[in-house]
Amino acid sequence: MEIAMRTRLQELLGIKYPIVQAPLAGSDNPELVAAACNAGVLGSFGAQYLTPDEIRKALARIRSLTDKPFAVNLFSQPRKQPPGDHQIAEESKRLSKYYAEFGISTPLADAVKTGIDPDAQFQAILEARVAVFSFTLGIPNPDQIKELKKASIILIGTATNVKEARALAAAQVDAITAQGSEAGGHRGTFAGEFEDSMIGLMALVPQVVDAVDIPVIAAGGIMDGRGIAAALALGAEGVQMGTAFLTVEECAVHQNYKLAVQNHDADDTTITDVFSGAPARGIKNKFIAENTGRHPLPFPFQNALTRPIRNAANKTGQIEYTNLWSGQAGRLARRVSTKELIGSLMSETKDVLNKLATDSA
Amino acid sequence: MEIAMRTRLQELLGIKYPIVQAPLAGSDNPELVAAACNAGVLGSFGAQYLTPDEIRKALARIRSLTDKPFAVNLFSQPRKQPPGDHQIAEESKRLSKYYAEFGISTPLADAVKTGIDPDAQFQAILEARVAVFSFTLGIPNPDQIKELKKASIILIGTATNVKEARALAAAQVDAITAQGSEAGGHRGTFAGEFEDSMIGLMALVPQVVDAVDIPVIAAGGIMDGRGIAAALALGAEGVQMGTAFLTVEECAVHQNYKLAVQNHDADDTTITDVFSGAPARGIKNKFIAENTGRHPLPFPFQNALTRPIRNAANKTGQIEYTNLWSGQAGRLARRVSTKELIGSLMSETKDVLNKLATDSA
Repeated sequence: MEIAMRTRLQELLGIKYPIVQAPLAGSDNPELVAAACNAGVLGSFGAQYLTPDEIRKALARIRSLTDKPFAVNLFSQPRKQPPGDHQIAEESKRLSKYYAEFGISTPLADAVKTGIDPDAQFQAILEARVAVFSFTLGIPNPDQIKELKKASIILIGTATNVKEARALAAAQVDAITAQGSEAGGHRGTFAGEFEDSMIGLMALVPQVVDAVDIPVIAAGGIMDGRGIAAALALGAEGVQMGTAFLTVEECAVHQNYKLAVQNHDADDTTITDVFSGAPARGIKNKFIAENTGRHPLPFPFQNALTRPIRNAANKTGQIEYTNLWSGQAGRLARRVSTKELIGSLMSETKDVLNKLATDSA
Repeated sequence: MEIAMRTRLQELLGIKYPIVQAPLAGSDNPELVAAACNAGVLGSFGAQYLTPDEIRKALARIRSLTDKPFAVNLFSQPRKQPPGDHQIAEESKRLSKYYAEFGISTPLADAVKTGIDPDAQFQAILEARVAVFSFTLGIPNPDQIKELKKASIILIGTATNVKEARALAAAQVDAITAQGSEAGGHRGTFAGEFEDSMIGLMALVPQVVDAVDIPVIAAGGIMDGRGIAAALALGAEGVQMGTAFLTVEECAVHQNYKLAVQNHDADDTTITDVFSGAPARGIKNKFIAENTGRHPLPFPFQNALTRPIRNAANKTGQIEYTNLWSGQAGRLARRVSTKELIGSLMSETKDVLNKLATDSA
């Protein structure tokens, strides 16, 4: 039961099935990425919140578990001007009740301002000669693109509208992930108005496919064979699935998060910037309710301020206080191994396609 | 080149192809509806803004042009408390520059408050014994449902989230239109939070299909055979297309509106309540830019206040001053006859499905 190696994307990435396990910065782990690769799809590791040393360690771990190619993902945003000490102090004060609740200390303003050097992260990934570098929220600068190309690293960029897709194609990426408004986690928008770039996959994929000549990967709300078949029908050459991998055995997020993903209704997620300062889709909870309407610091500074709260909450499964990124179809997630998931997805896809072809004969 | 009559929806509606021409209140016309019916799909007439007499006249005209079944559509909202004279006067004053620009008189406050009696509209449709009554933004009351059933009228309700789909099924409708966030025109949301019910079709359709036992029609951003094949893959038994019918020969909207639909990018539409007081998706223009951020009167009172402006603008093609409802894939619209459109759609759908089945063999 498999889709034959027919799409350019499968050839480009050397994968058996036209599926990418989405990077889940903060929720993925080397075991998940390797399990995805070993099951015949492209595993992705979200390196956004890690130091260069942590990145090197994680990549070594993935390589000890699989000899297949995998992707590493970063946010490609230009570095922002840090907020002033006063602003950081005010926001820390606002969050103090959470620090108190979890018995953790307030992050130091200097650490919040400095954060992790994106250039050093990029360098660690480049030097590791990963097979695929995927990115979102922007485009690496021309020098970086040149270096990646020289290292024969395949590039996958993220577009939320057609303008971004054209810009990525012009920057010589090898494939484009079309991120629909259905998707969980951070929105990749970097050109055009944010709200109006909340474009559903049904509308986004065909227009991106028509606009560029490179393979398009559909991402957002795809959870089963119905979604994969639909994405292929729209002209995508593969799908990227994130939420579907949150609940597999190899994903180490807390049991309570997994249950929340499986139990939420389609309208129980919302777009929020309260956790990181950048808009992302997650399941509504107490932290969102208590903090919506205030103005967080910009990403990544707000992220640095809330991270200790979220880490503590994650550890103990207090999911009302952490980011529960999830797409709009979390309810369709299943508790199986990565290998079982991929097997079911491909057999479902084939069944859907065969049934439709018979019906339309 | 046709999809065989296989879905329950096609049997229910007695249509050759699994397509519904969406009601386009204000932009459709009897000739378009009849052309859709005669081409083998379900035509729909949007009666929302018409008096009972106008409705009767339009239905008679449709019946003179086709002997096929068709749908008539209303907003099923409970009647709202009208705003006070002072509020109406203030809003009229704010809009006075547009009245002046088009040389039209300010609507009378009494007419704005009274509007068209929704019960009388409903009665006109019931008495006309139309084949199908479709509705959005709510559910007719139990007495109305009983009367419609007694008259053997098929009921199609609109859901933007799973809760609404369950409520519609419980109210004994015969089919459900799942309206994705991609869709142009008014949002149908009537239960749950508006913003969080902006659910993309890729996520919405499978969850609605899983939640109810009746046929589901996918609506939003579907413009060609790729979209139809994708909707069927997701488990829909048919599609509803609105924007695709705006540009056909039989649709009488101004040439400039048709060009705007074909030329807008996916992120050139926005959700706005400036025209009617209720949120709807349309192409961004001057009127939206000038009025966003203010608080319009609730629907239908704001609609009554802006209607003369829009009517005047429509007539002369001054599209910066009227509602250009359009979904997120207007660019894929084509200038052909209704019959040609349907023929192409079905042949494309078949091609997509055959190719995918071959690829996955």
